[in-house]
Amino acid sequence: MIFYLAPRTVAVAPHITLEEVGADYETRVLDFSTGEQRSDIYLGINPKGRVPALVTDKGVITETPAILLYLAQRYPEADLAPWKDAFQLAKLQEFNAYLCATVHVAHAHRVRGERWADGENALEAMQRKVPHTMRACFQLIADDFFQGPWVMGQSYSLADPYLFTISNWLEGDGVDIRDFPNIADHNRRMRERAAVAKILPFHDI
Amino acid sequence: MIFYLAPRTVAVAPHITLEEVGADYETRVLDFSTGEQRSDIYLGINPKGRVPALVTDKGVITETPAILLYLAQRYPEADLAPWKDAFQLAKLQEFNAYLCATVHVAHAHRVRGERWADGENALEAMQRKVPHTMRACFQLIADDFFQGPWVMGQSYSLADPYLFTISNWLEGDGVDIRDFPNIADHNRRMRERAAVAKILPFHDI
Repeated sequence: MIFYLAPRTVAVAPHITLEEVGADYETRVLDFSTGEQRSDIYLGINPKGRVPALVTDKGVITETPAILLYLAQRYPEADLAPWKDAFQLAKLQEFNAYLCATVHVAHAHRVRGERWADGENALEAMQRKVPHTMRACFQLIADDFFQGPWVMGQSYSLADPYLFTISNWLEGDGVDIRDFPNIADHNRRMRERAAVAKILPFHDI
Repeated sequence: MIFYLAPRTVAVAPHITLEEVGADYETRVLDFSTGEQRSDIYLGINPKGRVPALVTDKGVITETPAILLYLAQRYPEADLAPWKDAFQLAKLQEFNAYLCATVHVAHAHRVRGERWADGENALEAMQRKVPHTMRACFQLIADDFFQGPWVMGQSYSLADPYLFTISNWLEGDGVDIRDFPNIADHNRRMRERAAVAKILPFHDI
């Protein structure tokens, strides 16, 4: 498989997971500073012009929750998703959907505001609200969804590298992770995992 | 099961799917005009204060992609997801994740802009860009992801009620669905399905 990524983006989550499952893969790093993610060559692979993208023998998969679920299904021995329990699988997908559609989106209003509005005033108004929205998201996660010691409870799952990836954005978003002790503890323990330690130097986080 | 919803929201997609699978369920309608979705009673069910939410015998599930996948798994005879093919399941989840995290979010900047910025100028700047972003999203779907006759090709799946739900928002977002003939045709054929026809009067769409 070929994995397209850029450092410190949401691609960190599938990058960790590729290591967790022991996948045979190569990385291709896109240079966001030159807009390589919107080059014709890359748009031919992922017409969305974003990362991550995973090229498999059957075709290309985009969207972090989809790539994560694919890796869990293709490498069942890693036991990263509760396939046999419809309710627990739904709770895992619920968590990842919240990260994808609410938390990541809240964060993106700091540096990608031009996706949703034009004009310096609007972009600045969006940036001003990011600390508030990110804090509210993590308060909800910490209080109502994070079970501990891992997101889903006793079992490490796909939700863990995804939460870890986004919790590393908090500092830049103006939120102190230490205000959420269970999330800070989770971030620390994630760094102790071999799969995480292996890819952190590349991402410099 | 108890299904919490509001008319014309994204809850249309799981509402259709509850009918498609023949689920035994009751509806509870939240009055958004009085902010009932943020009442203490409802926050005790769904602390996110949003719809949809599905109360099952094991607990509450939120987030549209998660509820949809749960219904497909719990009612396998409806054949709404390609469980045995990891790549095809990933492509289905990729489509639904795009609707959830990009298309629904683009739409929400028209009427829910206060989630991401304060001030009339910023909200108006967001609203101005919605026709552009929604058009770009549907161009991508129509050109690169919609296979036809259904989203995933020959098999009707969870992606179909979800696309139908959001394609009904295009007119209000300032985009003419007829500019995307395959999407307009899909919307028309969805209305012919018994499960859809049954719930449309409630949603008045």
